[in-house]
Amino acid sequence: MSSSDIFISETIGTAVLLLMGGGVCAAVTFKRSKAFNAGWVAIAFGWGFAVLTGAYIAAKSHAHLNPAVTIGSAITGGTKWGQVPVYFAGEMLGAMIGAVLVWLVYYGQFRAHLTDPEVLADHSTEEGLVDPKAAPKAGPVLGIFSTGPEIRNVVQNLVTEIIATIVLVLAILCLGLTKAIGLSGIGVLLVALIVVGIGLSLGGPTGYAINPVRDLGPRIVHALLPLPNKGGSDWGYAWIPVVGPLIGGAIAGGIYQVAFA
Amino acid sequence: MSSSDIFISETIGTAVLLLMGGGVCAAVTFKRSKAFNAGWVAIAFGWGFAVLTGAYIAAKSHAHLNPAVTIGSAITGGTKWGQVPVYFAGEMLGAMIGAVLVWLVYYGQFRAHLTDPEVLADHSTEEGLVDPKAAPKAGPVLGIFSTGPEIRNVVQNLVTEIIATIVLVLAILCLGLTKAIGLSGIGVLLVALIVVGIGLSLGGPTGYAINPVRDLGPRIVHALLPLPNKGGSDWGYAWIPVVGPLIGGAIAGGIYQVAFA
Amino acid sequence: MSSSDIFISETIGTAVLLLMGGGVCAAVTFKRSKAFNAGWVAIAFGWGFAVLTGAYIAAKSHAHLNPAVTIGSAITGGTKWGQVPVYFAGEMLGAMIGAVLVWLVYYGQFRAHLTDPEVLADHSTEEGLVDPKAAPKAGPVLGIFSTGPEIRNVVQNLVTEIIATIVLVLAILCLGLTKAIGLSGIGVLLVALIVVGIGLSLGGPTGYAINPVRDLGPRIVHALLPLPNKGGSDWGYAWIPVVGPLIGGAIAGGIYQVAFA
Amino acid sequence: MSSSDIFISETIGTAVLLLMGGGVCAAVTFKRSKAFNAGWVAIAFGWGFAVLTGAYIAAKSHAHLNPAVTIGSAITGGTKWGQVPVYFAGEMLGAMIGAVLVWLVYYGQFRAHLTDPEVLADHSTEEGLVDPKAAPKAGPVLGIFSTGPEIRNVVQNLVTEIIATIVLVLAILCLGLTKAIGLSGIGVLLVALIVVGIGLSLGGPTGYAINPVRDLGPRIVHALLPLPNKGGSDWGYAWIPVVGPLIGGAIAGGIYQVAFA
Repeated sequence: MSSSDIFISETIGTAVLLLMGGGVCAAVTFKRSKAFNAGWVAIAFGWGFAVLTGAYIAAKSHAHLNPAVTIGSAITGGTKWGQVPVYFAGEMLGAMIGAVLVWLVYYGQFRAHLTDPEVLADHSTEEGLVDPKAAPKAGPVLGIFSTGPEIRNVVQNLVTEIIATIVLVLAILCLGLTKAIGLSGIGVLLVALIVVGIGLSLGGPTGYAINPVRDLGPRIVHALLPLPNKGGSDWGYAWIPVVGPLIGGAIAGGIYQVAFA
Repeated sequence: MSSSDIFISETIGTAVLLLMGGGVCAAVTFKRSKAFNAGWVAIAFGWGFAVLTGAYIAAKSHAHLNPAVTIGSAITGGTKWGQVPVYFAGEMLGAMIGAVLVWLVYYGQFRAHLTDPEVLADHSTEEGLVDPKAAPKAGPVLGIFSTGPEIRNVVQNLVTEIIATIVLVLAILCLGLTKAIGLSGIGVLLVALIVVGIGLSLGGPTGYAINPVRDLGPRIVHALLPLPNKGGSDWGYAWIPVVGPLIGGAIAGGIYQVAFA
Repeated sequence: MSSSDIFISETIGTAVLLLMGGGVCAAVTFKRSKAFNAGWVAIAFGWGFAVLTGAYIAAKSHAHLNPAVTIGSAITGGTKWGQVPVYFAGEMLGAMIGAVLVWLVYYGQFRAHLTDPEVLADHSTEEGLVDPKAAPKAGPVLGIFSTGPEIRNVVQNLVTEIIATIVLVLAILCLGLTKAIGLSGIGVLLVALIVVGIGLSLGGPTGYAINPVRDLGPRIVHALLPLPNKGGSDWGYAWIPVVGPLIGGAIAGGIYQVAFA
Repeated sequence: MSSSDIFISETIGTAVLLLMGGGVCAAVTFKRSKAFNAGWVAIAFGWGFAVLTGAYIAAKSHAHLNPAVTIGSAITGGTKWGQVPVYFAGEMLGAMIGAVLVWLVYYGQFRAHLTDPEVLADHSTEEGLVDPKAAPKAGPVLGIFSTGPEIRNVVQNLVTEIIATIVLVLAILCLGLTKAIGLSGIGVLLVALIVVGIGLSLGGPTGYAINPVRDLGPRIVHALLPLPNKGGSDWGYAWIPVVGPLIGGAIAGGIYQVAFA
């Protein structure tokens, strides 16, 4: 597989992942959305089926869509180390494109939300902003782009992201997905449902980034987009959903090598 | 496959799609329904499993059930251009039959709803009628037949339908569904779950028609059925869920040819 | 396959179907249940996965679990007419056993519910009892055993059950399930999800019996069980969820023969 | 397969099962969790997908993750009796590790919950504590570790656990899972969905342990962890979710041998 094939496939697949994943966050956040307040079950299934869609579209490049998966795959020999930067580049670009597409799909809703006096008066009711200490850092639509902790605590937040990512990457490695995936395979469906499960079970404290570009790409887009009253992008938290998943992916690769290879 | 085989299969399959899809909208809308107010998760899964059911029933004709899929398939060589009008005709007839069947299944509920003083006094609480400007155009049961925007804006509504349809058709093309589908295949299940995902993620602004006949067929039936107090059929909006998905299907076909073929 | 094999397999499979199906109705109805008020999505998935479980357990007899399926299968040649009575007998016995098992699993909850003054004072809030005309006919736990209409209307209720059963049986026939099912097959999963879809979409008016024994077996058990204050078994309605599904199964067999065979 | 392979695989798989299963209980219990109050549908799917994830990770040892499954498998010849203690040991250790991991993932939430005056004032609103007689026995976070009855009644609680476990183990045996499971198999997905169904349908009275170590392992961890104000571990109930599932697993093995082998 050529580097440009990997790059294009990962870019499109990750764009779809973030379009649909960010989309479900938008769908439940905005008052003038048919899915307003649809709840955590909607969010967990929305992200899971975002993985499903993006991964089948990117089947050509084995659908990593996530640097933590790429790391785990490289450690276990499923991906050549030389291809890792190409994967990372496509994943990052795709995540940013996806976040921009969410903005286009929900354009009017963003505008209505960010000029709604009720919303502006009370940021703290937004997802990711429950912690009063977070309020000055994170704006009222940041939760549509990036994750944030319910309780801000560097060690716990990092541990949560590491453990949740270990579950994801270990399951993917055990399914053998990164070595051989096919259009007809059921493995992607299983991964998608595992992502639903991780969301339901381990997403409570930090919103389960479990993917560095899923968080960082949209956060950069949040900082760049010309949104009125958008508030801060909470850069103080930004390193945790990048570093945690990378560590988790590497640990999962190690566990796999020791216990299952 | 003969044209009459295609026509019959697409008609029956699309009728089932609209019966079950319109059915879930009815189920959550009517007070005297056991699923009253069951929420957006119910709607998204209801439509997804409507696709599942209709598509397996129409497996013989590769289950397009949607002109946007037919367009995408024709562009990528999966369907002969000469068969396209046959597909369109079956899909349109099926969609209209499905909408009539919803009316039969929920006959008493339609009558109770449309003579309920509370409902008539306040159309604006109906799905698709949140926008006050839409209230005089759309009647209290139109949301059971056709889609409508939460925020009425031609450009945004069109963009939303285009992007959501690109996701749908690109995923179908990547799954190779339009070229070879079998009774035993899992592809249809995957498409159904992808439709659930699109509903959860991208359905918020316009109610995700992502299929010209899904919207236009039932809208015509809404205009023709002898329903008391049914109100308008919102014809001003009707072109968007027709044109948007057709453009989206064509763009998806193009992306597939350039990036994946 | 011997008649006794069919009988035993259908009995056990249908018992599991009704245990789990009746179970989810109990789970959402009783105040002292962890699933109290879990909503229609829980009911629809609960019944669908009841089909999943019962059908895999009864795979040996091709898992009809439903006389409407047996009829449709016999019409299309999948089942010998001579075996039809054996199927019917196993299905009916299994449905009754399943209803008794629900009572055992929720024994304390039945007792608490039927001696709760609030429940007894207001039957009409129970599922299936929304119609005031139904109140004197149906007791406060009948909804855990059998279906009942939201709006009592013989013609509409019959039409709803017929149409919903056509969808079910036609899908099963198109999947080829009644002719060859295996332990490894995915067909049962698809049928289970289609049942979820029928519940979400077409279950609103009558509670979707779509299976004669699913309704009649438990209704007989309801009449026989020594439950205090159990009220009537609504025998006036009982023929509709028997006759409707049988007609629907036969029509589906006919459609399949004409359009798809 | 060597004993150490079985032990390691079952330990890791059961740890993931309990991490995700306990995790979803934590996710819906804690106020400062994004999934707070997400409802019984979230819990049922969360546990089902916990099985999915743990089982694929432990595919090497045929993923029992549950002594009741091991018993049923041994009775039907799928597992050698000599391996049974190894399975039990791995399952028990894994369950305890999983419970500790839940505590780490939700560390801040545990602390906030157990020092919240509102929570401490009213234990009886916690899951598993509805019965006033249970209140002095069970602490405010025990429901995140172990199950408890809505109505405390030894016979009924035991019967409920036995019947629910029979359904689980009989379905697994009919699927042939314990004899041959593969990475590519769909059987694990089916079992996971069956577990969702058991939760929705039969989980109401006791919270469906259906697995001795799922309940006992975390209960021991609850007793050992240095949690302030954690209250009692309800040891009086602890034998029921151990003995009931073991009996259920054995009965399921017997039914399988008699009716299906």
